[in-house]
Amino acid sequence: MKADFVNPFISGLLNVMSTMAQTTLTPGKPQRKQSDVAKGDVSGLIGMVGPEVKGSMSITFDEQLALTIMERMVGERPGKIDAEVGDMVGEITNMICGSAKRELGEKGYEFGMATPIVVSGKSHSISHQVDGPKIILPFMCDEGHAHLEICFDK
Amino acid sequence: MKADFVNPFISGLLNVMSTMAQTTLTPGKPQRKQSDVAKGDVSGLIGMVGPEVKGSMSITFDEQLALTIMERMVGERPGKIDAEVGDMVGEITNMICGSAKRELGEKGYEFGMATPIVVSGKSHSISHQVDGPKIILPFMCDEGHAHLEICFDK
Repeated sequence: MKADFVNPFISGLLNVMSTMAQTTLTPGKPQRKQSDVAKGDVSGLIGMVGPEVKGSMSITFDEQLALTIMERMVGERPGKIDAEVGDMVGEITNMICGSAKRELGEKGYEFGMATPIVVSGKSHSISHQVDGPKIILPFMCDEGHAHLEICFDK
Repeated sequence: MKADFVNPFISGLLNVMSTMAQTTLTPGKPQRKQSDVAKGDVSGLIGMVGPEVKGSMSITFDEQLALTIMERMVGERPGKIDAEVGDMVGEITNMICGSAKRELGEKGYEFGMATPIVVSGKSHSISHQVDGPKIILPFMCDEGHAHLEICFDK
């Protein structure tokens, strides 16, 4: 998978976080091993289908970071991951993928986005089932960790 | 969402379970409330994108049922949900959705399937983020429970 393909998702995440939640995330070292899995407490997942590409994206947050983002977006901090936090994570997932879709579309890579799915559960792990390359990008800030994972079938 | 749309997923699940794992699942009462969530220990999720439809499907298993299916498919029962069980759940997800895709395609509803994603984690919950109807179908057998969830944007 070319950097061309991954970068629009990274800039989508960083932009959404800074504009919507005044949060600056710092990227860590990308992991590429098939055995690597992202772990977290709440995740947004979305499928992508195009004439030339097929894949999936996930964004996973630690509970404390998800609650901080929620606090910064709506002004109140929930006590735990609830349905509203789930909706916010679904919305963020849509925004990151939508932003990458626009940018990649301009480069000639067209795909359609499925509807997002949110998973909640203490320290769950995500495994994208693709034959092609997988890339997990860790991000951090004072409030916790996030993992962005992007996978395509070729 | 019409029964026309849901039934191919149900028959896909029942067929895959009986042919691949000699397991007969009994359907329970469908749930339609937006607040209902499926809970389980391992889930397969997949996005669907077509010119007229956009949605997501998930199949969630209790740990014991997932281990039993694995045992019946490969002859050995793993001690816990591991990467092989995850791959099996991803494969089952692909097969259910692929079977529904063929049947719905014959009726004129075309869609493309994204790549499946598998989530593992004790008692996680799944929330499909769609504006349209959601349907959760519980299934049971002596070995445990499964939940099939199908959601479309319209």
